[in-house]
Amino acid sequence: MTAGGDAPGMNPCVRAVVRTALGNGLRVKGIRCGFEGLLAGDFKELGARDVGGIIQKGGTVLMTGRFPEFAELRYQRLGLRKLNEAGIDALVVIGGEGSMNGARALGQLGFPVMGIPASIDNDIYGTQMALGVDTALNTIIEAIDKLRDTASSHQRAFVVETMGRSSGYLALISGIIGGAELVLIPEQDIATEEVAAAVSDAYVRGKTHAIIVVAEGASLHGQALIDALNAMNTGFQFRLTILGHVQRGGRPTAFDRLLAARFGVSAVERLLAGEHGVMVGLQGREISAIPLEQVCTEKRRANLDYYRMARMLAK
Amino acid sequence: MTAGGDAPGMNPCVRAVVRTALGNGLRVKGIRCGFEGLLAGDFKELGARDVGGIIQKGGTVLMTGRFPEFAELRYQRLGLRKLNEAGIDALVVIGGEGSMNGARALGQLGFPVMGIPASIDNDIYGTQMALGVDTALNTIIEAIDKLRDTASSHQRAFVVETMGRSSGYLALISGIIGGAELVLIPEQDIATEEVAAAVSDAYVRGKTHAIIVVAEGASLHGQALIDALNAMNTGFQFRLTILGHVQRGGRPTAFDRLLAARFGVSAVERLLAGEHGVMVGLQGREISAIPLEQVCTEKRRANLDYYRMARMLAK
Amino acid sequence: MTAGGDAPGMNPCVRAVVRTALGNGLRVKGIRCGFEGLLAGDFKELGARDVGGIIQKGGTVLMTGRFPEFAELRYQRLGLRKLNEAGIDALVVIGGEGSMNGARALGQLGFPVMGIPASIDNDIYGTQMALGVDTALNTIIEAIDKLRDTASSHQRAFVVETMGRSSGYLALISGIIGGAELVLIPEQDIATEEVAAAVSDAYVRGKTHAIIVVAEGASLHGQALIDALNAMNTGFQFRLTILGHVQRGGRPTAFDRLLAARFGVSAVERLLAGEHGVMVGLQGREISAIPLEQVCTEKRRANLDYYRMARMLAK
Amino acid sequence: MTAGGDAPGMNPCVRAVVRTALGNGLRVKGIRCGFEGLLAGDFKELGARDVGGIIQKGGTVLMTGRFPEFAELRYQRLGLRKLNEAGIDALVVIGGEGSMNGARALGQLGFPVMGIPASIDNDIYGTQMALGVDTALNTIIEAIDKLRDTASSHQRAFVVETMGRSSGYLALISGIIGGAELVLIPEQDIATEEVAAAVSDAYVRGKTHAIIVVAEGASLHGQALIDALNAMNTGFQFRLTILGHVQRGGRPTAFDRLLAARFGVSAVERLLAGEHGVMVGLQGREISAIPLEQVCTEKRRANLDYYRMARMLAK
Repeated sequence: MTAGGDAPGMNPCVRAVVRTALGNGLRVKGIRCGFEGLLAGDFKELGARDVGGIIQKGGTVLMTGRFPEFAELRYQRLGLRKLNEAGIDALVVIGGEGSMNGARALGQLGFPVMGIPASIDNDIYGTQMALGVDTALNTIIEAIDKLRDTASSHQRAFVVETMGRSSGYLALISGIIGGAELVLIPEQDIATEEVAAAVSDAYVRGKTHAIIVVAEGASLHGQALIDALNAMNTGFQFRLTILGHVQRGGRPTAFDRLLAARFGVSAVERLLAGEHGVMVGLQGREISAIPLEQVCTEKRRANLDYYRMARMLAK
Repeated sequence: MTAGGDAPGMNPCVRAVVRTALGNGLRVKGIRCGFEGLLAGDFKELGARDVGGIIQKGGTVLMTGRFPEFAELRYQRLGLRKLNEAGIDALVVIGGEGSMNGARALGQLGFPVMGIPASIDNDIYGTQMALGVDTALNTIIEAIDKLRDTASSHQRAFVVETMGRSSGYLALISGIIGGAELVLIPEQDIATEEVAAAVSDAYVRGKTHAIIVVAEGASLHGQALIDALNAMNTGFQFRLTILGHVQRGGRPTAFDRLLAARFGVSAVERLLAGEHGVMVGLQGREISAIPLEQVCTEKRRANLDYYRMARMLAK
Repeated sequence: MTAGGDAPGMNPCVRAVVRTALGNGLRVKGIRCGFEGLLAGDFKELGARDVGGIIQKGGTVLMTGRFPEFAELRYQRLGLRKLNEAGIDALVVIGGEGSMNGARALGQLGFPVMGIPASIDNDIYGTQMALGVDTALNTIIEAIDKLRDTASSHQRAFVVETMGRSSGYLALISGIIGGAELVLIPEQDIATEEVAAAVSDAYVRGKTHAIIVVAEGASLHGQALIDALNAMNTGFQFRLTILGHVQRGGRPTAFDRLLAARFGVSAVERLLAGEHGVMVGLQGREISAIPLEQVCTEKRRANLDYYRMARMLAK
Repeated sequence: MTAGGDAPGMNPCVRAVVRTALGNGLRVKGIRCGFEGLLAGDFKELGARDVGGIIQKGGTVLMTGRFPEFAELRYQRLGLRKLNEAGIDALVVIGGEGSMNGARALGQLGFPVMGIPASIDNDIYGTQMALGVDTALNTIIEAIDKLRDTASSHQRAFVVETMGRSSGYLALISGIIGGAELVLIPEQDIATEEVAAAVSDAYVRGKTHAIIVVAEGASLHGQALIDALNAMNTGFQFRLTILGHVQRGGRPTAFDRLLAARFGVSAVERLLAGEHGVMVGLQGREISAIPLEQVCTEKRRANLDYYRMARMLAK
């Protein structure tokens, strides 16, 4: 099952789960449209050919959806019943925070579950990188590279707003690698005056453009930020670009495809070895597993070393 | 000189102008930052190596800028004086509508000028395609392709807003080639009810997503359009993506690079042959020239055949 | 039917043919795998949804193949019989030169046929651009841009060999827009000494790299060209990159998708209006039609103006 | 200094080294053209603006080159003298295996050196990933995705040959994430019969295409492999695509830009802290340092788990 918001890499991960399972003599059913599809009994037998030709596709061929109601026990019980009726022995859930909560609930009711983290926001505890993050970062810097073309030609400045919900990860990293003058993230407050000072400073140093990357969850963002900046005298006129849902799409990158393969293989092999109630994750160079209990109760924290790096390299 | 809003293709065009001129034994000076740079006397001698390595770059190495004040005679006279002081015999202006007006003014004062149309909006009279249009279209459909990934995975609908000012060209063509359900352009009014009906129809026909492409100049656009659509019961929930300035950037495509080369070569060869006061343009497969007088007084009209094609192919 | 070598743009063209036909109240059958599939009776009814989601795909969902045996009358007669058995009223063939010959043969036997030119080689008489050419050009210049990165960093030189069979079109245009020092094409002979002289000249003028684009059909190409160049003392050490079949793949560009839509719509509308035995083509900005008889007997010629332009702009 | 073969990511790494040094109150000189430039005394003072606008560029603005003669003591001594004459206190060398050997030699003569691993081959001991590997992998899978378009349309098979010298890393990973039927690498011998059997098996299972990825260092590769495969009766006709030097070029990916920034910052900070004679490297999620002595004497080994994964996922 893929669930929650879609992320590039879900398709190669589905492929890896299916082929690893088949290679180990198992049969596989795909559940369409996430937890809502589970409740509707929307299952489909998947063979090796069914997951052919999807390795390079964005989105998810299994479809997905948000279904917050699955937090209610009556839905979890219904889900359990549907799994049993379909003769399922173990469930692999590919998704974000909410989906891991759903998986954990089924696990607490005694069903063998395995989580695989997928979310461009990279806000899931227990893995350095979730599926989709690398592709989203590449989409963002491609946009920033294009904005820089036009910004440099016009002595202009842009505020680029990224996704990330309450996480600043996408903004922080794309700010560093996009060569932004400044990054605004939810995890680090900064006064408007300080933002304006940094931009003025860039102007005085002779920069032909300025780019600020801001996370959608930052306290100051959107048109309000633009208005605040343009009211101060920084030397630059700012414009806003909200990247929006393009960040969720696109062919998965090499990194996301490899991570998807490794996650998928590990998920199935761990289930075969009797492990469950966990989420696979990237720890250093290894694929490890961490209890879903922990995934759902602890909070991932931003690495503020990157914040300092962003400021130093912008000079 | 490059002037007005920047467009991908300006750099290979500058390269072609410079190399053609040098190849014919002329000397070339670049004027930086458009008409404002002209008034400031910001000229720079350009050799063959100065335009090396720029063929694949977005933006313009000569920098550009809008300077509406050049409509005033006193600025035009000052510009003329600066050109004469620098010993310039003829001026090539690469830019959009406003820049062609500036070129025409200098021409009317007796200075030999040659226009080259560059504007992603494709709103310049006298050429089928301006520089930058093809690159912008490719940028837009890449974004639409990414949105379709996520739209299909979620049964969602997107409104994609393109640039174009008062022209619907970018929206219309990208709607056709992006597989949009509907296109909204300034040149063709459509009632909200009709939009909602088209989307409902797509839903009923079993489409897993709906994409509407809307020109920024359309009477109904932006959040107001989203609110109107979501208030009606179409089966889809709509979200808005405003593509913004990324449409101006990016490596120029094959088409734009070739057009840039042809425009640049033709501009210089025509000047050498004594022709001036005109703008080069693409007419069928040929590069022709049309009086700047006409460029600045006539209006380009939308091809509504494309509008009908968009609707037919969406079914 | 799609036939012959595949070309990007075939899929959006199939989509346009199908949807235009359905929109006019017709029924459509797809023939799989080209003329060989025709003989095997490999037909499949196509609805509007069957061609959904293919507008951005390279290759052809109908599959294709070369089948030179179709030049024999007995196969043509068998093809005719299969068409009649399936109750087909008119046939649209999307393909290259060989496929137009096949279509013409069926037309001569009295069957209503319509050709649509698709071939990255751009060697089909009767259209300025065939489907796939623009995408292939963009693929080639992306490769050349990458080679230039490494060439410039190393003071190195590359020979880039493009497809094109006996046509130099791809090499010539990508040489101009890729900023090549020189282009070698079948239509224009050049002595190895002259090639070496041009490269020596670039070296002396201080260029940090040299790129030669050569058509696969040029008299001097491949490793023999490299050996010849490295034997002369040009200042550069040459390496060979044969781009190969990647030139056939990839998402169709904006240009190819629009051309595909226009060709597909026009093909069906012309058939409905009683026109057949022709191939649609791009003439200037219009979609025209030309008798298949003429397409198959006349030869497209290279535009040597481009050759001169390539040499001038390289300086 | 950047040295050896170029790799995408060198430019953002140069930028990070320069800005971190300047931010710490140091002055920076760039050495052009690698070790040969060092001997020629080709130094250039670098300010913050000199490394602006290069973060997204392939290749290296410092230029590079191979200079195997630096293995000789007399050249090393001359290099040392040039460094002292220019008043250099510490040297950062960005490059591959050969360059690390050069750095080590200067270190052994008592000069403070710091290595940064950059090589698309990923064959450097002491780092999980070298600069350029991720970009090269993305370039390779983009090519494979394009070949798959055409292969699927034709029921064809392709052998794709990647770079890597004696390392199979690029081939192995791109085989997994490109969905190849089989991967041939120097580290794992396989009989031609086994290759043919795997392909036959894919044909029988109904695959519409087959792709084999082969490292340039594999015992069986190039045209000889094609001839061997086509001599056996696998059901597929094979064609060869040698990707060549395009693998070295291109805009560095998000991963390579971030790694470049982290390597560059860490290199300078370690030098400031008195550490030298080491190479920075990626170990898990941390940037560590390892003695150049060890880098130059130990061998990186292929991870054969990936080889087994490639075979399992191909089924």
